[in-house]
Amino acid sequence: MNDVTEQHTNHSSRGSMYWVIPDGYIPLISQGELESHDSICVLNCGTQSAELHITIFFEDREPLENIVQSVDGRRTKHIRTATLRSDRKYIPKGVPYAIVVESSVPIIVQYSRLDSTQAELALMSVMAHPIS
Amino acid sequence: MNDVTEQHTNHSSRGSMYWVIPDGYIPLISQGELESHDSICVLNCGTQSAELHITIFFEDREPLENIVQSVDGRRTKHIRTATLRSDRKYIPKGVPYAIVVESSVPIIVQYSRLDSTQAELALMSVMAHPIS
Amino acid sequence: MNDVTEQHTNHSSRGSMYWVIPDGYIPLISQGELESHDSICVLNCGTQSAELHITIFFEDREPLENIVQSVDGRRTKHIRTATLRSDRKYIPKGVPYAIVVESSVPIIVQYSRLDSTQAELALMSVMAHPIS
Amino acid sequence: MNDVTEQHTNHSSRGSMYWVIPDGYIPLISQGELESHDSICVLNCGTQSAELHITIFFEDREPLENIVQSVDGRRTKHIRTATLRSDRKYIPKGVPYAIVVESSVPIIVQYSRLDSTQAELALMSVMAHPIS
Repeated sequence: MNDVTEQHTNHSSRGSMYWVIPDGYIPLISQGELESHDSICVLNCGTQSAELHITIFFEDREPLENIVQSVDGRRTKHIRTATLRSDRKYIPKGVPYAIVVESSVPIIVQYSRLDSTQAELALMSVMAHPIS
Repeated sequence: MNDVTEQHTNHSSRGSMYWVIPDGYIPLISQGELESHDSICVLNCGTQSAELHITIFFEDREPLENIVQSVDGRRTKHIRTATLRSDRKYIPKGVPYAIVVESSVPIIVQYSRLDSTQAELALMSVMAHPIS
Repeated sequence: MNDVTEQHTNHSSRGSMYWVIPDGYIPLISQGELESHDSICVLNCGTQSAELHITIFFEDREPLENIVQSVDGRRTKHIRTATLRSDRKYIPKGVPYAIVVESSVPIIVQYSRLDSTQAELALMSVMAHPIS
Repeated sequence: MNDVTEQHTNHSSRGSMYWVIPDGYIPLISQGELESHDSICVLNCGTQSAELHITIFFEDREPLENIVQSVDGRRTKHIRTATLRSDRKYIPKGVPYAIVVESSVPIIVQYSRLDSTQAELALMSVMAHPIS
């Protein structure tokens, strides 16, 4: 969790500090070798550690707020949404949701889903929508 | 359909009020457990309810206009396009179309399609194109 | 090919006039009911017809230039790239290529591919990259 | 590797010089006819050759830096990430990573993955995120 030394300064902090993904969904079913899941993929190009505050929005209930994650400087982190916790609350499977990622430093965010509900996996991915 | 109370003010209204998706398509066929469909996924980060006016464009006929939907404040809504109605008109299956979503407040829009025409589902997703 | 009447003025011309898709590819093989193909999906929100000039770039040869297409006002057009012609030249299957779409009026462009090389289709889609 | 002659001047250099892809992954397994892989797809619209410097970021180790590639003017290049080398180091399979592409001239970058871990391929694609 340490930031890297200052000798690497060619990649400064880049991107946006607020990213949105409207279509989140953790499939109920998995078949075959790979488990259905979706992931928030973050790149922190800079040298400072990024503190993320993630909010999960639903269709019919109050948001899950203040989910905290960190991404070290000059590191990527591919975060399975099923692992996110706000107190002891987590994202239920089979429910449409949306994601907001706020970061303490500029980052870049992509969202990907693997669905193996019907055997033979399906993939989708989008760059999250940055708001400056 | 009530807006949330004013104690949650950290997420203000964000995004754009005009979003475009050129590649809409509801597959004719479904196989297996999951039905072929496409969805407009909306996130309304703010506290005010968003009134959406959706227009559907076709290749060979006049657009379907003034389809109305709403998304409560601090909620997401994943809208299956097959459920959209303009008077009693709806989007036919198996026909290429395009979508414009206009909103009364800033929102973020993503478009996703699940195609199970040939068993074993296929997924695709794009962030809609915002126009400010 | 006529523009629509002037009574519809709520959707003015929107988007960009120059769009880029770096990853074009027409799969060699199709299995099952659906043919492998890729498509350029265009929406013309305005009332004026859009004249498109499409350029196809390759890895190892000169581009195919001056491919002309048109999209009527208030219409979408989903154009299979396999149908594009520059004189009698066309895009070969199984070859990586890239696409530039230039338009006489602002439009919005999305690119999608259906690959049924191995039975059970795969889908991918991206919003093209606009350059203003 | 020669730039094209100056008679083609309608497509000037376009795009951005810094592109980011947070979700890179080379699947461990391939089944059927097509090999699992991911690709960085670059379009160089201009007449000058583009020199690319690619950095690969990981979750738990220092980045691979100074991977060099070039894309001739008026050409596209679809680069399989498994072929990238920094000295003799390469991207391991089955490990989450992220990509930064820096170019000497403006280009446009898309990222695509084909996953045939479970037979019947899956596809995903995103436009890389440009930073100006």
